[in-house]
Amino acid sequence: MTTTTLFAVTRRRCVGAVPALRSTRTVSTSSRNPPRWKNWAFTGRCVAMSVTCGLLGAGAATVGIVAMDSHTVGHVTFDSLAPLVSWTLNKQDPIQCREENNTAAQDESVRVSGRITESSPMRLRMEQFIKEKQQEICKALEDIDGNKFRVDSWKRPEGGEGISCILQDGNVFEKAGVNISVVYGKLPPAAVAAMRENHKGLEATDEPLPFFAAGISLVVHPHNPMAPTVHLNYRYFEIENQDGTPRAWWFGGGSDLTPSYLFDEDAIHFHKTMKNACDKHDRRYYPDFKKWCDKYFYIKHRQETRGVGGIFFDDLEDKTPDELFSFIRSCANAFLPSYLPLIERRKDMSYTPDEKIFQQVRRGRYVEFNLVYDRGTQFGLNTPGARVESILMSLPLTSRWEYMHVPKLGSREERLMEVLRKPKAWV
Amino acid sequence: MTTTTLFAVTRRRCVGAVPALRSTRTVSTSSRNPPRWKNWAFTGRCVAMSVTCGLLGAGAATVGIVAMDSHTVGHVTFDSLAPLVSWTLNKQDPIQCREENNTAAQDESVRVSGRITESSPMRLRMEQFIKEKQQEICKALEDIDGNKFRVDSWKRPEGGEGISCILQDGNVFEKAGVNISVVYGKLPPAAVAAMRENHKGLEATDEPLPFFAAGISLVVHPHNPMAPTVHLNYRYFEIENQDGTPRAWWFGGGSDLTPSYLFDEDAIHFHKTMKNACDKHDRRYYPDFKKWCDKYFYIKHRQETRGVGGIFFDDLEDKTPDELFSFIRSCANAFLPSYLPLIERRKDMSYTPDEKIFQQVRRGRYVEFNLVYDRGTQFGLNTPGARVESILMSLPLTSRWEYMHVPKLGSREERLMEVLRKPKAWV
Repeated sequence: MTTTTLFAVTRRRCVGAVPALRSTRTVSTSSRNPPRWKNWAFTGRCVAMSVTCGLLGAGAATVGIVAMDSHTVGHVTFDSLAPLVSWTLNKQDPIQCREENNTAAQDESVRVSGRITESSPMRLRMEQFIKEKQQEICKALEDIDGNKFRVDSWKRPEGGEGISCILQDGNVFEKAGVNISVVYGKLPPAAVAAMRENHKGLEATDEPLPFFAAGISLVVHPHNPMAPTVHLNYRYFEIENQDGTPRAWWFGGGSDLTPSYLFDEDAIHFHKTMKNACDKHDRRYYPDFKKWCDKYFYIKHRQETRGVGGIFFDDLEDKTPDELFSFIRSCANAFLPSYLPLIERRKDMSYTPDEKIFQQVRRGRYVEFNLVYDRGTQFGLNTPGARVESILMSLPLTSRWEYMHVPKLGSREERLMEVLRKPKAWV
Repeated sequence: MTTTTLFAVTRRRCVGAVPALRSTRTVSTSSRNPPRWKNWAFTGRCVAMSVTCGLLGAGAATVGIVAMDSHTVGHVTFDSLAPLVSWTLNKQDPIQCREENNTAAQDESVRVSGRITESSPMRLRMEQFIKEKQQEICKALEDIDGNKFRVDSWKRPEGGEGISCILQDGNVFEKAGVNISVVYGKLPPAAVAAMRENHKGLEATDEPLPFFAAGISLVVHPHNPMAPTVHLNYRYFEIENQDGTPRAWWFGGGSDLTPSYLFDEDAIHFHKTMKNACDKHDRRYYPDFKKWCDKYFYIKHRQETRGVGGIFFDDLEDKTPDELFSFIRSCANAFLPSYLPLIERRKDMSYTPDEKIFQQVRRGRYVEFNLVYDRGTQFGLNTPGARVESILMSLPLTSRWEYMHVPKLGSREERLMEVLRKPKAWV
């Protein structure tokens, strides 16, 4: 270790309160991977974020920051943002967020007071919401599986943290990961300029601006080939004026289902639940975001979607923050009702060895999408010092690549492939 | 099928002569994936090849053409070039190579005469060599495994073909793939201009130039965790004047070893065999190409090499074509002596379930390299109409991603990781 360790990691079971400020295991990524922001390229919509508190992309969904280095074009995602924050504490490149980002300090004082209300900044309300949601989801999944999540969490005094909860090789779940991240930092003028393309109201700047990002991300791969994989991600992004008032903000996210064996009633239930959550807020949302989802989760070289879709959206700022936060909460709250009935129905179904093999082949496609196309994963893996384990928690425990695997004519496997090649309207 | 089927696929056992001009199974990729060269971007070293007979990238090694679309930067590789040739036969975008590429027609007449000698064009000598080598290697691997390779081959009258040989789930090999490809086409002036960076002698042009590319590529994943995975790729590229004489040419290739359990004597034997093959031609080659190999097969986000290396080189034109062809032959001929003793030694060793799991975790890293970093795979997957099955034959049959897999202190697994983090000088 060549750097001062300024924060620590806790490992515990994910029950009760979210861990904060514990110190049982030090993080050493900061010493191995000093930030190399200066080498990053800026071009078009693609912006290297020379942020003072770094962001980490991961998993399978995106946020309204686009970033690249010479090989990567991608939105920033929020699975486990926190590890990258450690870069800023590297002695070779010292940056002190607290001094630079007043918002972080302001928010911390509210956090300490314990009084987060409806009139608190959206940052704190979103943070509180995703932390509660993480615990609720982990608890529900633990109840089904009978095993507990492993929890790795990071906390830093300056105002960023991440919590990765992983349940691996359980009774029901092959691998389930539920991550949250909360980060404060600074965006350079060029990054702000690039964001103006999707956010016309965002005024240009000639000095770095504070930003805030918070998100929850989840992937669940069950053992039983009859039980579908599911993914979820919801996130809030904010760019602030120097006085801490929001200059621009948006929400993004979505949730999508990836069965190996397709039960139409499962796909219908999942989509109906997401549609109901959307319809309460805007009847255009579901049809628009369903299409966006099919388009985003597309494995181009296979000419098939990753799964049967759901919803996906980004850069959402078409209503008031309160209205959109309410929408995001509806979506996130719809997750357990959308998925638990499916897992309950399928987790104990009998299956053949061939069906297990087909599931493994589909797992391979999941890996192909996440490693080849997912912008967040690409960004994360190309980010020096990224916490790779959190980025790749979205990958299944096991997968398979068979040469020329072709489902039999008229088989259930062939039916799935047809649907993946030509997405259906489920509701 | 909306296009005329102008060529066909044969499936047979890979024994005896290489199949040619057989017609038992039609290829339909041409109808599904019309060429979209016009959409490709040209920038810097990265050149979209608006070639009349397309090339397909794949596997794990590269050739001296660089190509990109909006997401991909990569050298072109030669695992299964042939499927892309089918694009040129699409009625929507008719291109007739024979008329445009005189070299293809000239070579075909020599092929038909059956007289390929030391004074024949390098194109034909390389083609003959890689076809013989493919058969020899397949035969040797079949003898060890006891199972036969499945062979898919493509042939087109205009002068391009590819043969993919795959042995999957055998007695010894989890998956072994040996591909060859031979392609004729045209390079647009911009592509030629970009190539001049690495080939100073290549004169600029304001009209498309004929090119030729031929290569052999191989990946072998054994079942036994004690037996290492191996990869090989050798290729020849040529750009011709309108009269068919070479305007520029180069060789590329290499071979590298990826053990899950490291036996030093295996790594030493492999490197020593490659070094001997190199030393016969140039004593600088092995040290230079060993370093190049460690640099190329590097999993950046893991901060580790894919395996224990070997040799890797590209754009090689520093001697006469005859001298370098002789070097390439020495390297390719060294493959069986470099690998067979290792597989013989390890294939029947006993191992524990935990050792099998560690092998599967290492397989996951192999997948990560090939899908995230390998330029050929990236190019291939981003190429409309690519034969994905040939590109991804390099992936193992099975793999595994464990969250936070950390080898025990002092274990053999930890020893391997140390070597992958800090490549050793083996000879």
